Amino acid sequence: MDILESLNWRYATKKFDSDKIIPQAKIERLKEAFNLTATSYGMQPVTLAIIKDKALQNKLVTHSMNQQQVGQASHVLVFCISNITKATINEYFDRVKAIRNTPDDILDPFKEYLLDSFSKKTPEEITSYCTKQAYLSLGNLLTVCALEGIDACPMEGFIPEDYDNVLNLKEKGLQSVLVMPIGYRAKDDMFADLKKVRKSVAESTMEL
Amino acid sequence: MDILESLNWRYATKKFDSDKIIPQAKIERLKEAFNLTATSYGMQPVTLAIIKDKALQNKLVTHSMNQQQVGQASHVLVFCISNITKATINEYFDRVKAIRNTPDDILDPFKEYLLDSFSKKTPEEITSYCTKQAYLSLGNLLTVCALEGIDACPMEGFIPEDYDNVLNLKEKGLQSVLVMPIGYRAKDDMFADLKKVRKSVAESTMEL
Repeated sequence: MDILESLNWRYATKKFDSDKIIPQAKIERLKEAFNLTATSYGMQPVTLAIIKDKALQNKLVTHSMNQQQVGQASHVLVFCISNITKATINEYFDRVKAIRNTPDDILDPFKEYLLDSFSKKTPEEITSYCTKQAYLSLGNLLTVCALEGIDACPMEGFIPEDYDNVLNLKEKGLQSVLVMPIGYRAKDDMFADLKKVRKSVAESTMEL
Repeated sequence: MDILESLNWRYATKKFDSDKIIPQAKIERLKEAFNLTATSYGMQPVTLAIIKDKALQNKLVTHSMNQQQVGQASHVLVFCISNITKATINEYFDRVKAIRNTPDDILDPFKEYLLDSFSKKTPEEITSYCTKQAYLSLGNLLTVCALEGIDACPMEGFIPEDYDNVLNLKEKGLQSVLVMPIGYRAKDDMFADLKKVRKSVAESTMEL
């Protein structure tokens, strides 16, 4: 399907068919696509948690403003951010070196710059920085889902602290920032057939 | 091309072929794809400015930490956010009504909720909210560019105030938050052939 057709096909799914499960091979493709998302400096401060346990999903519904899609969906994706510390910056450069065999004298100035730059950021600034990368990842994955014929509903309406507790994210150094149930739309989701509400392209874009 | 192949093909382009120009028909597709991006509550607080004027691009290079791609690229996309006011919320609901013919008694509770919710946000909170939507849009568009065979380099490294001045964004009620030169990679961009640096999928994702 043409990408514009796919983007027109997708909508924020309000009711999922809870009997339809996404095949594991497709989930593996989504994981790969997520991992290929661009991130600032390539540091990947976002981890994707994938839930496919109905009991757990139902437990999360109450922490998601009662949005039933969290319980109905085939899987629930939770975009989690981690902290950016001296250790994570060092690990990043170790990874560059291991994969590309780049000499230290090329990497070191950039590494020093990042270490210095992040040492000056407040925890709130680091959270904001990482959160933006989570939105970027979601933007990529939502489009990939549409191309793969997978329905999705991106959600900001949930209680991050509750998710972090239920999923034991804190002990993994993570915190939840975005949620996206994925699966297949229910036949009777009346929202599927509603016209898309958008500004005209002339209103939302401008050539300078 | 398979989406995973496309995502592997893309990279943050360090040198563009300044002789290769993206056909206008492709630009129209990108505009359409941008306009179809999901945004929180569907409010579309992001406007895409498209620059295709070499003199203007060259002027912007100095405001982009001297990143030469801004001057070389076929076009430069600037993701701009607007304010969310009582007027923009009202306009959004007028749009829903015009497109879907939804009765007021269905829309009003949601409209009141949004008016109330945004009236309590500080300017900084609204900026943060809109900025996240810009990252989501960029995530979508970067993937669409890859599918269309268009090279891109997403950039946070520029001086928003300078961009806003040069492009007269303030008088349009806009402020720049992200920049993305797009076009075609130069044959001698050595970064094109470097191995992609990524965590393993097992490190960046987890099934719960």
